Amino acid sequence: MNPTTYEQGIYILKNIEAVARTCYQSADKITDDSYLKMVKILRDNKHDAMLEFGNMTVRFVMDRGVSHEMVRQRLCSFAQESTRYVSRKNIEVVCAEQISLDEEAFAVWCDAMTHAEQAYGKLLDLGLKPEIARDVLPTCLKTEIVVSCNIREWRHIFELRCDHKAHPSMRALMIPLLEDAKKLIPIVFDDITY
Amino acid sequence: MNPTTYEQGIYILKNIEAVARTCYQSADKITDDSYLKMVKILRDNKHDAMLEFGNMTVRFVMDRGVSHEMVRQRLCSFAQESTRYVSRKNIEVVCAEQISLDEEAFAVWCDAMTHAEQAYGKLLDLGLKPEIARDVLPTCLKTEIVVSCNIREWRHIFELRCDHKAHPSMRALMIPLLEDAKKLIPIVFDDITY
Amino acid sequence: MNPTTYEQGIYILKNIEAVARTCYQSADKITDDSYLKMVKILRDNKHDAMLEFGNMTVRFVMDRGVSHEMVRQRLCSFAQESTRYVSRKNIEVVCAEQISLDEEAFAVWCDAMTHAEQAYGKLLDLGLKPEIARDVLPTCLKTEIVVSCNIREWRHIFELRCDHKAHPSMRALMIPLLEDAKKLIPIVFDDITY
Amino acid sequence: MNPTTYEQGIYILKNIEAVARTCYQSADKITDDSYLKMVKILRDNKHDAMLEFGNMTVRFVMDRGVSHEMVRQRLCSFAQESTRYVSRKNIEVVCAEQISLDEEAFAVWCDAMTHAEQAYGKLLDLGLKPEIARDVLPTCLKTEIVVSCNIREWRHIFELRCDHKAHPSMRALMIPLLEDAKKLIPIVFDDITY
Repeated sequence: MNPTTYEQGIYILKNIEAVARTCYQSADKITDDSYLKMVKILRDNKHDAMLEFGNMTVRFVMDRGVSHEMVRQRLCSFAQESTRYVSRKNIEVVCAEQISLDEEAFAVWCDAMTHAEQAYGKLLDLGLKPEIARDVLPTCLKTEIVVSCNIREWRHIFELRCDHKAHPSMRALMIPLLEDAKKLIPIVFDDITY
Repeated sequence: MNPTTYEQGIYILKNIEAVARTCYQSADKITDDSYLKMVKILRDNKHDAMLEFGNMTVRFVMDRGVSHEMVRQRLCSFAQESTRYVSRKNIEVVCAEQISLDEEAFAVWCDAMTHAEQAYGKLLDLGLKPEIARDVLPTCLKTEIVVSCNIREWRHIFELRCDHKAHPSMRALMIPLLEDAKKLIPIVFDDITY
Repeated sequence: MNPTTYEQGIYILKNIEAVARTCYQSADKITDDSYLKMVKILRDNKHDAMLEFGNMTVRFVMDRGVSHEMVRQRLCSFAQESTRYVSRKNIEVVCAEQISLDEEAFAVWCDAMTHAEQAYGKLLDLGLKPEIARDVLPTCLKTEIVVSCNIREWRHIFELRCDHKAHPSMRALMIPLLEDAKKLIPIVFDDITY
Repeated sequence: MNPTTYEQGIYILKNIEAVARTCYQSADKITDDSYLKMVKILRDNKHDAMLEFGNMTVRFVMDRGVSHEMVRQRLCSFAQESTRYVSRKNIEVVCAEQISLDEEAFAVWCDAMTHAEQAYGKLLDLGLKPEIARDVLPTCLKTEIVVSCNIREWRHIFELRCDHKAHPSMRALMIPLLEDAKKLIPIVFDDITY
């Protein structure tokens, strides 16, 4: 996650203030802590366009079922581990808590993973490209994805993806991230609850 | 696919002309076939904003590996078969030509499909929700997806997805679609080659 | 404005239903009036992505002060009368109600319009291109602009532009439009108040 | 403009490399100068999505005729001096070179500016709000605008706005900016000519 420190978080807020004051031509009113009040006003008055002047970038590990939803966030930039150009004999997968906590389900799942891995290996051995052999890989294949967008859009993501209607694996990623974000960049996310 | 007839395609072009002439305040110059020249000028002069005033909607069946790429087209609207809310005892899958034409590979793939289907069924029987049980489903799971966007964006999609660097399953969907689109809505796609 | 009839409005809603049922694979549940319930559910549950499958296109006449705000709606497509390629000896302007109802203000405004028109004419006579001569034209210059976007975005526009914080000339355009839209395309806008 | 130093420019490129290598899972291949080759490959192969992981923010002074075009760049974030909430007795305007170099035109323009300023002052004195009184202000009114977007979009802006078809005042802003950007952030803009 970037920013990585509270100081960087504050720097983002001060930049948002400096930019927002362009609208009102009030740069002369900037003080050491005027950003506290200004950013809160912007957030509460829904002057959201100003929250676009701060960015947050996060590196996630998730499964490809969840990433298929994640990449629907149009305003984000994504860099995702490719299943066309990356192949591995030993695949990496993500086990959902709902499965790992259920002994029977876990056994079924483990067997399915082994079987899928073997089929994938055989298809590669037969000379198929990874982009074709991937067809037998499971939905819970691990994927690494870097997601970057502005704070206005992160607010939208948190509201959507921390909600009880979101997929549990998505929530499990997003709720701790929101808590971290609230600490690193104060004010802008404080009003988001779930 | 919508439009479904050549007449509807021409109607789209005439609408684009009517809108574009707003810029030049030249509505008085519209004749029965003036759209032919006007739309070609817009396309050749890259006055692309005007091509946003025509839409094309397509219903696809593809695998979820390809749809994961498809939904990265930010300007499209999507309605996709859910793996959270839809479940079936007998899953539907898409077999890539590179697999179906290779006897050995096909056998491996069929076995993998059967095994995945059984694991999915067992997880459902154990009481897991489809949104969790889906984790064992393969990448080549069939998905139905409706994609809608304007013609400017379809031009971009065709340029990207008919290219030899695109995934073969994506090309296999997009090249025939481009040929159909060229017939139904003339002029606007005529310059796109692959 | 397009749609132009109630029947076309209903057609839009039925199309939204047909598309939305792709997600749930429930096309078999479509009846003559099932769209009524389905579209209301989509709207109330904020399944907004489905509302992107209907479009509304509106031709406005407004002043260029207001259009400068209007074109900030990123998801709209615009075709706007050009001040670079269109020139007229007799300029057309829009008089705000706040001015026309105030005799003194109206006199000042009329004089300013005449003066600006004359300066514009002189600059053109001196051989300057319209794209340069326009510099002396007033903010209330009339502009014709066609705006097209999907219903999800129109909802956002109405919420923003009918609000009491919006510019009065924007509200004066948007409030009657919302009322018309509620009549032509029922359900989808019904919950928007101002 | 931000970045403000060459070191910051290089930092942006190194970040783009680090992100892009997620796709290929090749983070182990990063060396001190591997970004040089990687970023050039991304640019030349049109792997544009990776260029979204660097941002550039610019503070402009321009006239409101040009800013009306500028804000059509959908992917940019904008903070613009308001004509609704900022008012000044002495207005600030931008004089196009085509006018300032022509003695006769300059006289006409100066007279128009004075007249517009006086009308604006009178309307304010009559108690009208700035958001209404602005109607008599000229198109060449000075505006301050902060524009932020990613490098992929800046490439698009430069290609569009440095072109000979762009408005001369837009080109006069964008061509020197492109030259500065080429120096501060090497490689990513080097292939753009005008």
